[in-house]
Amino acid sequence: MKNIIVGQSGGPTAVINSSIAGVYKKAKELGYDHVYGMVNGIEGFLEENIIDLDEYLSNDENIELLKRTPSAFLGSCRYKLPKIEDDEKTYKRIFEILDKYEIDSLLYTGGNDSMDTVKMLSDYASMHKSKHTFFGIPKTIDNDLPITDHCPGYGSCAKYIATSLKEIIRDNESFNKSRLTVVIVEIMGRHAGWLAGAAALAKDDTCDGVDAIYLPETPFDVDEFLKLIKKLKDKKNSIVIAVSEGIKNKEGKFICETGANELAVDAFGHKQLSGSAITLCNIVARETGLKTRAIEFSTLQRAASHIASLTDINEAYAVGERAVEEVNLGKTGMMVTLKRVNDKPYKCETDIFDIHDIANVEKKIPEEWIDEKKHQMKPAFLKYVRPLIIGELMPIYKDGVPVHLVRK
Amino acid sequence: MKNIIVGQSGGPTAVINSSIAGVYKKAKELGYDHVYGMVNGIEGFLEENIIDLDEYLSNDENIELLKRTPSAFLGSCRYKLPKIEDDEKTYKRIFEILDKYEIDSLLYTGGNDSMDTVKMLSDYASMHKSKHTFFGIPKTIDNDLPITDHCPGYGSCAKYIATSLKEIIRDNESFNKSRLTVVIVEIMGRHAGWLAGAAALAKDDTCDGVDAIYLPETPFDVDEFLKLIKKLKDKKNSIVIAVSEGIKNKEGKFICETGANELAVDAFGHKQLSGSAITLCNIVARETGLKTRAIEFSTLQRAASHIASLTDINEAYAVGERAVEEVNLGKTGMMVTLKRVNDKPYKCETDIFDIHDIANVEKKIPEEWIDEKKHQMKPAFLKYVRPLIIGELMPIYKDGVPVHLVRK
Repeated sequence: MKNIIVGQSGGPTAVINSSIAGVYKKAKELGYDHVYGMVNGIEGFLEENIIDLDEYLSNDENIELLKRTPSAFLGSCRYKLPKIEDDEKTYKRIFEILDKYEIDSLLYTGGNDSMDTVKMLSDYASMHKSKHTFFGIPKTIDNDLPITDHCPGYGSCAKYIATSLKEIIRDNESFNKSRLTVVIVEIMGRHAGWLAGAAALAKDDTCDGVDAIYLPETPFDVDEFLKLIKKLKDKKNSIVIAVSEGIKNKEGKFICETGANELAVDAFGHKQLSGSAITLCNIVARETGLKTRAIEFSTLQRAASHIASLTDINEAYAVGERAVEEVNLGKTGMMVTLKRVNDKPYKCETDIFDIHDIANVEKKIPEEWIDEKKHQMKPAFLKYVRPLIIGELMPIYKDGVPVHLVRK
Repeated sequence: MKNIIVGQSGGPTAVINSSIAGVYKKAKELGYDHVYGMVNGIEGFLEENIIDLDEYLSNDENIELLKRTPSAFLGSCRYKLPKIEDDEKTYKRIFEILDKYEIDSLLYTGGNDSMDTVKMLSDYASMHKSKHTFFGIPKTIDNDLPITDHCPGYGSCAKYIATSLKEIIRDNESFNKSRLTVVIVEIMGRHAGWLAGAAALAKDDTCDGVDAIYLPETPFDVDEFLKLIKKLKDKKNSIVIAVSEGIKNKEGKFICETGANELAVDAFGHKQLSGSAITLCNIVARETGLKTRAIEFSTLQRAASHIASLTDINEAYAVGERAVEEVNLGKTGMMVTLKRVNDKPYKCETDIFDIHDIANVEKKIPEEWIDEKKHQMKPAFLKYVRPLIIGELMPIYKDGVPVHLVRK
């Protein structure tokens, strides 16, 4: 018997399921007997919540549906493995289950926190000279994993942001100056501005784009911001500003904390943010008297598979395939990465890298890609992000709504 | 010379421009010399802000782009004409401009308030035995115009709501019960629940749909609502609720007014609402301790031409064509309506009706289409709305983002 299991972890994306499709198809091609899926990641795995993917994916129509299904088909979790020295029991349990199902390899899709799970499990295996192999498959809309050129999930989110912002701008510029509204759009990305930066993609020869982009990488100055709004209101009929949920002032305090919003903390100890846009709208209304509107893309931005990037879908599929190929060769304790090998035409290949250099490391936007003075992204950033949003995979519609593949 | 002018008024939609395309093509076919567009509706017209549509629409590629361009290509306004007896000067000015440009007929796309403009102008013309003709073209995402079966703009908004809610539900159900989140989604529609009702379209054989729909037509009871949430939390991993921005309590007070949000008033004296979802999230968090997330579709829902309904685009085009045909026959003081002539297969034709029975009248959802106890829509509503979201018109993409047609 030659069996493999795959799990999904962390925040969902529009293309995370394409990686599952890639894993399944490649594993079948390489002669694996069972391709299992863990339901709700390692948390469900510990409860033996395991399904055989043959049940869903043995026909190619379902593979096509899965590629177009947002969120985590297998269910996700935010479960942090304990330190090995603190709780060996959990690790023993995981390896018992692997043995019970005769599973050789465990693949895990996720971001920084999820890659930590892959690291811990492969460390434990190596400490105990276990033959089991563990491999990471990158997935995060935040695009903040190091080493890899970019992360599957990011391109589709960026495409949603660009398209929706263009539509918001179109809407907001439909009235004349007497109805000028300052629209402030809040975009996900706690510590890195990759997603907020993608707002720059809304600009083209028929669209002015957003008037400013505020990133977590750059301290936010309320006075400068108000100065800009006052300048813009004299020359424009429409003002649309993009802000990251994670913008902070000079003192390092989140802007949303300067408002009246409360903060919660997730299982990894990260603060749950919301309300940068609302906070800024309140300030603009108070200080300028202008009409304002706060828009949060919220979970829409990470679930909008109806406008996913084909490049992103294909790359998510490819990193899934590559992970299977590597564990099939006996590799372990690594993550698949994406390596850009050419710009024009854009060409990207998969590669692999040691998980120890990836887990828990956050990659921010390089300073030289940010125009801090103009609150805009520099051409180098656009050159980087543009290829990632290219191409579309038309949803399969039934009764006017996209069809998804779901577990029974 | 035989000239015609068209203007856009009120809140923009995803398909309002398709009506302009229909007007232009039909007018050219019927031998009109100039097809003019007023920039920013009657407000811009009064300043002679007028363009010749030949400049943009004489090639069919641009017609195709215009059909896929959201918001008001010509620019919109919220301008209420004065009563004739209060300010005849404004009317004289309008008819002077019509004469100056040798314009025979004025067409106006819009909702209730905009139809009032058509009514006033045709009344003035008839009082003064003027030969000028005036015709209304229905357009409103709110779907609250009387007589017509439905309004162009509504179907595309409903399709966006159904698709986005399905994606939000998929996202929210990706974690297990330990991370249960109550998502409350706020949908436009001030006094009528046509749009919030469209949330029912998210339900299909792979999706549970939203757990409850709250409409302005039914008084909102906070205690009943909390009881439902507490019942749902025991049996579900994900709770998603759809609410109209205009829900009110038994005393007739807007729910959002019961929170801390301020209210503004628009040019027509309508209250500008926001915050039903946030208000309810605060209540749920306080009373149940559950994690909550408020999502507002905001202007995204009326501008999302990237997922517009083809049925809607075609009908918006057809009502534009029909208006030209009618004024060409000398008709005036009427609006084009849509008349459903068959259900299966769905078939809809255009018709015309006296503007006096339409202007300023709001149509609500019939009581018998609402299941007040279950907070869901009855099958009769779904039978009504489903055909309106059928079909897609793929955007034309450039560099990964949909292309629009804009004025220089």
